[in-house]
Amino acid sequence: MTLNTVWAEIPMSDTAKNTKNPIRGLLTAGVRPQSTPRSTKSIINMSMGDPTVYGNLKTPVGVLEAMHKHLDSYKGHGYGPATGLNVARQALADKYSDPENGVNYTSDDTFLATGGSGAIELAMAALCGTGDSILIPRPGFTLYKTQAVSRGIDAREYDLLPENNWQADLAQMDSLIDSTTKAILINNPSNPCGSNWSKQHILDIIAIAEKHRVPIISDEMYEQLVFSGQVFYSTASLSKNVPVLTIGGLAKIHLVPGWRIGWVIVHDPINVMNSVKAALVNLCAILNGPNTTVQLAMPEIFFGDFNAAHLDFLKKTLEENARLVEKKANSIKGLRAITPQGAMYVMILFDPDVFDDSINNDSDLFHTLLWEENVEILPGDIFGLKNSMRIVIAPPKEILAEAFDRIETFCKRHYKN
Amino acid sequence: MTLNTVWAEIPMSDTAKNTKNPIRGLLTAGVRPQSTPRSTKSIINMSMGDPTVYGNLKTPVGVLEAMHKHLDSYKGHGYGPATGLNVARQALADKYSDPENGVNYTSDDTFLATGGSGAIELAMAALCGTGDSILIPRPGFTLYKTQAVSRGIDAREYDLLPENNWQADLAQMDSLIDSTTKAILINNPSNPCGSNWSKQHILDIIAIAEKHRVPIISDEMYEQLVFSGQVFYSTASLSKNVPVLTIGGLAKIHLVPGWRIGWVIVHDPINVMNSVKAALVNLCAILNGPNTTVQLAMPEIFFGDFNAAHLDFLKKTLEENARLVEKKANSIKGLRAITPQGAMYVMILFDPDVFDDSINNDSDLFHTLLWEENVEILPGDIFGLKNSMRIVIAPPKEILAEAFDRIETFCKRHYKN
Ligand SMILES: Cc1ncc(COP(=O)(O)O)c(C=O)c1O
Ligand SMILES: Cc1ncc(COP(=O)(O)O)c(C=O)c1O
Repeated sequence: MTLNTVWAEIPMSDTAKNTKNPIRGLLTAGVRPQSTPRSTKSIINMSMGDPTVYGNLKTPVGVLEAMHKHLDSYKGHGYGPATGLNVARQALADKYSDPENGVNYTSDDTFLATGGSGAIELAMAALCGTGDSILIPRPGFTLYKTQAVSRGIDAREYDLLPENNWQADLAQMDSLIDSTTKAILINNPSNPCGSNWSKQHILDIIAIAEKHRVPIISDEMYEQLVFSGQVFYSTASLSKNVPVLTIGGLAKIHLVPGWRIGWVIVHDPINVMNSVKAALVNLCAILNGPNTTVQLAMPEIFFGDFNAAHLDFLKKTLEENARLVEKKANSIKGLRAITPQGAMYVMILFDPDVFDDSINNDSDLFHTLLWEENVEILPGDIFGLKNSMRIVIAPPKEILAEAFDRIETFCKRHYKN
Repeated sequence: MTLNTVWAEIPMSDTAKNTKNPIRGLLTAGVRPQSTPRSTKSIINMSMGDPTVYGNLKTPVGVLEAMHKHLDSYKGHGYGPATGLNVARQALADKYSDPENGVNYTSDDTFLATGGSGAIELAMAALCGTGDSILIPRPGFTLYKTQAVSRGIDAREYDLLPENNWQADLAQMDSLIDSTTKAILINNPSNPCGSNWSKQHILDIIAIAEKHRVPIISDEMYEQLVFSGQVFYSTASLSKNVPVLTIGGLAKIHLVPGWRIGWVIVHDPINVMNSVKAALVNLCAILNGPNTTVQLAMPEIFFGDFNAAHLDFLKKTLEENARLVEKKANSIKGLRAITPQGAMYVMILFDPDVFDDSINNDSDLFHTLLWEENVEILPGDIFGLKNSMRIVIAPPKEILAEAFDRIETFCKRHYKN
């Protein structure tokens, strides 16, 4: 072989090249505009899907007590099995079994992962290899596409229809499936939509999966977070014939996103998922499981007495905030909020036609709003829906109110005359 | 398309199929033999590379105190940046910079990961895509091959020579490199060998890397764990011209393998690694970083006053145990220990010719020893070296002594007559 005489820049692998995080792209694209003065107001963060940012939503004390106890027990410092500690797997089986609907999990059906993120990676990689395809929602959580493309999986997007309560376009979903399709990924309640699907809509999706003999990956990170009048239906509990890999995690409901605990649970009502369970075992060996101390605390985190009050408070807070944001947004010309039903987000559509030339698209809106008002939202096109913005509704009401006052000022400044 | 009329078993992806954990294969292959009675002695575990199994080596109290403090601070419950919290990255830069040798890290050179395992995955995936090749040691930590093959990377093994203090076969290493080769992975001190390389040997490897313009991945999970008379040399500190990705983690040195904290540090003395750093940023987005509470505690874990005494105790214990195991093994006909210099392992070669027909190979030895004596070791062929066994030297001395008494009894029972 011929040797280089000097070193050239070492290239990144194709894998790394194909691993794209659109949010990072947005934030590193640089600040704009610089023609007007930069806002000196304090920054308001309504962009990060992290409920703990402002301190109004706090990790329950009971959760911390469990952690203190397990740290001192010296039982959570060693390696656990790569698929998870038995006590954590059993806690998952106990919590998510639903015997009335024929869902009876054992600990072997559950797999611990590094956050919901790691769980999505496990579920996708178990079912899909390079060249296979997967259906994902649009707008949808950005990591679905990032992870699929990173692994050479063809990510096919089905639309969620804002005018139809963010239900999936079923005809399109059906048409996107072919023999390469190894999974339909759904996310309910939805990030970024803040929607909660009806039983019938989930049954309709299950019917499509059944028609094509394709398993469902159901991301239920926000499973308990639905507002009054809403009922949350777990896909697994509704599925009599279609295998479902349910994704979950502690991040949002128990207010510990940094702890990085997620899971995949395999619902296999027709006994066709033994290879896929073996696949999950194989894949867990790569990382050897998530933090064991937190795993040890999972029974307390799930079943502690403090939990019911915590969840009530969390839901009530998010719902009040959702209503506030919806009302505020709808009072501003050019903005329209789609009524949220759950999760931690409100999607607001905006009409670029009412704004001046500096606000032509999502990216303009994001950068200009941040520059002029120090209000950080995420532009909807990051998630796949143009002319929209995603608002995280976890901050305290006063902050949200202040943010929308600034947004109103901003809009007035930028209406076309 | 034609639809299936019934569901067939859902196949695992090629990715999952290619993700093979040889230890699991061994353990699930079933117990043997069943002709003799199963031992009723208590089990002795010298197989798991987990120093905390027996409780004689305990997570330092100072580490737990730091965790308690950060749990109560409410500062480690939210998301951190995907590459790691700044306080953790800065702690890594401070700890591993070596200005005397021209190594000056900033926090941007460091990347947090889910354990050393996650760090290996990040480093490999940053440099190597499908179809690229990587050099890995044989015998070597099993995860190197598992991870490479899982991602379609060609894992080429260079031999470590037991008679030569487990130094790499340099001529072979040189010959294995071609234009597809994107990294040379080395591991020092070594799992499973228990070796610690000389300065000169590391310089020789750096020279090969320089000749071929290939960066080094240096797995230094056991970096501080060397025995009296030994000096540990970090590859980065010796490398003036070759970029090095150093792998490290809290697991072994700080006795918290379950906490799943590892890192990659980029040493780039000739400024050719900017793309690779960008690659690491990209790849960190997949999992969004490891547990943030532990990250917050890293300054205390690294720089706490308790650390020096802890490390002394750990090294002293391991060294005494290493000497005990070496002596015991070498007193048994048919076994020969290679003198360990560091890490937590002793490799013992065995001569199948002196044993009866039930002990023809590593797998026989493993299964029969476990069945008859309830002593669990790992067979060397798992790591790529036939006719050897790996002993974990972390258990208490009495346990190790008892284990070797049983091994002696076992050998006597199985000598060929
Ligand atoms: C729908 C959805 N799934 C998964 C995740 C990832 O969860 P984690 O932060 O535990 O990795 C998120 C986080 O925002 C999410 O919104
Ligand atoms: C050489 C080596 N590298 C990396 C690892 C993985 O470290 P962790 O357990 O932090 O994932 C190990 C664990 O045994 C190891 O021996």
